[in-house]
Amino acid sequence: MKKISLLGATGSIGTQTVDILLNHREQFSLAAMSVGKNIPLARKIIADLSPELVSTMKKEDAELLQSEFPHTSFTYGDNGITEVAVYEKSDILVNGVMGSVGLQPTLHAIEAKKSIALANKETLVTAGHLVMSAAKKHGVDILPVDSEHSAIFQALQGENRKNIERIILTASGGSFRDRTREELQHVTVEEALNHPNWSMGAKITIDSASMMNKGLEVIEAHWLFDLPYEKIDVLLHKESVIHSMVEFHDSSIIAQLGSPDMRVPIQYALTYPDRIPLSARQRLNLAEIGKLHFQEMDMDRFRCLKYAFEAGKAGGSFPTVLNAANEAAVAAFLKGRITFLQIEDFVEQALDRHSMIMNPSLSEIEEIDRETRNFVLSLI
Amino acid sequence: MKKISLLGATGSIGTQTVDILLNHREQFSLAAMSVGKNIPLARKIIADLSPELVSTMKKEDAELLQSEFPHTSFTYGDNGITEVAVYEKSDILVNGVMGSVGLQPTLHAIEAKKSIALANKETLVTAGHLVMSAAKKHGVDILPVDSEHSAIFQALQGENRKNIERIILTASGGSFRDRTREELQHVTVEEALNHPNWSMGAKITIDSASMMNKGLEVIEAHWLFDLPYEKIDVLLHKESVIHSMVEFHDSSIIAQLGSPDMRVPIQYALTYPDRIPLSARQRLNLAEIGKLHFQEMDMDRFRCLKYAFEAGKAGGSFPTVLNAANEAAVAAFLKGRITFLQIEDFVEQALDRHSMIMNPSLSEIEEIDRETRNFVLSLI
Repeated sequence: MKKISLLGATGSIGTQTVDILLNHREQFSLAAMSVGKNIPLARKIIADLSPELVSTMKKEDAELLQSEFPHTSFTYGDNGITEVAVYEKSDILVNGVMGSVGLQPTLHAIEAKKSIALANKETLVTAGHLVMSAAKKHGVDILPVDSEHSAIFQALQGENRKNIERIILTASGGSFRDRTREELQHVTVEEALNHPNWSMGAKITIDSASMMNKGLEVIEAHWLFDLPYEKIDVLLHKESVIHSMVEFHDSSIIAQLGSPDMRVPIQYALTYPDRIPLSARQRLNLAEIGKLHFQEMDMDRFRCLKYAFEAGKAGGSFPTVLNAANEAAVAAFLKGRITFLQIEDFVEQALDRHSMIMNPSLSEIEEIDRETRNFVLSLI
Repeated sequence: MKKISLLGATGSIGTQTVDILLNHREQFSLAAMSVGKNIPLARKIIADLSPELVSTMKKEDAELLQSEFPHTSFTYGDNGITEVAVYEKSDILVNGVMGSVGLQPTLHAIEAKKSIALANKETLVTAGHLVMSAAKKHGVDILPVDSEHSAIFQALQGENRKNIERIILTASGGSFRDRTREELQHVTVEEALNHPNWSMGAKITIDSASMMNKGLEVIEAHWLFDLPYEKIDVLLHKESVIHSMVEFHDSSIIAQLGSPDMRVPIQYALTYPDRIPLSARQRLNLAEIGKLHFQEMDMDRFRCLKYAFEAGKAGGSFPTVLNAANEAAVAAFLKGRITFLQIEDFVEQALDRHSMIMNPSLSEIEEIDRETRNFVLSLI
């Protein structure tokens, strides 16, 4: 029986993780979880899976739920998230929160020697050097949950990483794949949220439309697989059927394919290196799909991807700036305060004014993150 | 240094194996080889790679070459092939001969505890139960060299075979993919030999056009991966870019892709489980290819594939009949003595009249093989 701590249980990754746990009660139990503001859903998960510890965002919610579930322990706030992350009875932390808020609890969980199933890519983007060196030091597995990184991780099983020629991250192109930059001037939040292939949270869907999501994934891949940026390529593949690929130096390519179901990479992280049947699975039918398309990525059309490569290659504190500026800009776009193309403008401006710090410490990262968000807010 | 015995050194698989050995002299040496009638090419390989033992088809050729290369040992004929297969200094046998003539030397090499890199699919089709049980008994690896089976073998690295839902062999459709059965009535040998993707020997190219090649591969996969026929699917994929796939019960699919270069699976069999750089490799460029196509396989259009599934499922001596009838019919077609569609007619007739023997012995297999060929010749 594997015991799970789950951060962001009511979010997109969280609810899909809960679905897996409900369907494999013989293999997994939910030891602890954190939730945000969706208390009705939190209530349902507590009733279904009886976690021992639950953290809410607000103190009032913790008190309300405590009165309803006297046998469960409740806590709240940032400290609560960390309590869930390091909960002593859990074996593995599924980090399904969005944004750089996922960083601190991940580092604490690594120190507590939990395996990390990481859906929170911002954690690696903003502090990859800290996370990976801590994981190495404490002998902890960082298991990717992003479909692309899980694909690469699966493709690498049984392989020697020294034989990697390059990895190829596929990109669907997001909601605006076929629009020109001119047509992007006045797109609405609703249009941006309409992703062609994947059902995901709002922030990541906007990041897919701007291609920043792929940029963050490039940086994530750099850290997860210890590869220089020269060995990371991005390929436009609108069907998202091939989730990503690894090319070896004998020219052989191993790819992982499947239907767009995030439960597959989540479950693989939980069962790795084994697999178990996926409940209510939709099997891929390539004959029905008929054609798969591939296209070079246009770095001028998708400027956020270019900035991500540049920030990643420059290294140091640049990825932190890239990520913080993007988070602040996307939040402003979702509130209707800036246009879609201003997201990339603000990211560019934030990068341009930044003076890099090599190997930033956690407190420096937090300071740069805060300062960058303030800078972006000052532009609005 | 890995020492290689190579059967069929001047053939398609053989010359590509020689190319690998020439480019990796620090890793491999050619200990022994068998050749057919191409003595000029045999002479060149002897000069380049200095094998210790060489077997020719004809006694005169062995004597001629002996006079030219006094430091090499020469032998000839069927016994010579077996001497090469079991040559005591070699570690691995690359079996690149075509047809059921590859069976005996393979069995002898297994008994001599050589690893087997098997390009000769007829060996497994006609006597899979004997080969695989001998390999198990002697603890010998059977390493697939067919691109499809190598793809599956590569996709299975690091995986637990109990998690396989099915394997999916891809089929290019061969030279006549887009022709109707009516249009197949009068196709010529030259047309049949014009394969769209792969450069291979004559027999396998005709088998690709008739789809018998895929049928033989289905039976080969059944033995190599110990899977029931219900877990083996065939998918039409005209670009041959995805060489084959494995679907697991969590709905994840692992595929191997690449340019059509047989040196990749040959070299992988030689370096397994490691990989080494492939010389003068043509890297796959999916953006350049643009589109990959997939289509259900039509078993009425491709009757040989249907017969292969039927013969495989029926088991016993049926696959031997399927293979022998096909070999005899293809030979007759290549000599212009029968039409293309008569290949499948003759295979069907041979299967229809056969009374199955369960678990045939080697001598029973050889008898059925001989008798089936005679039957096919009697139809011409």
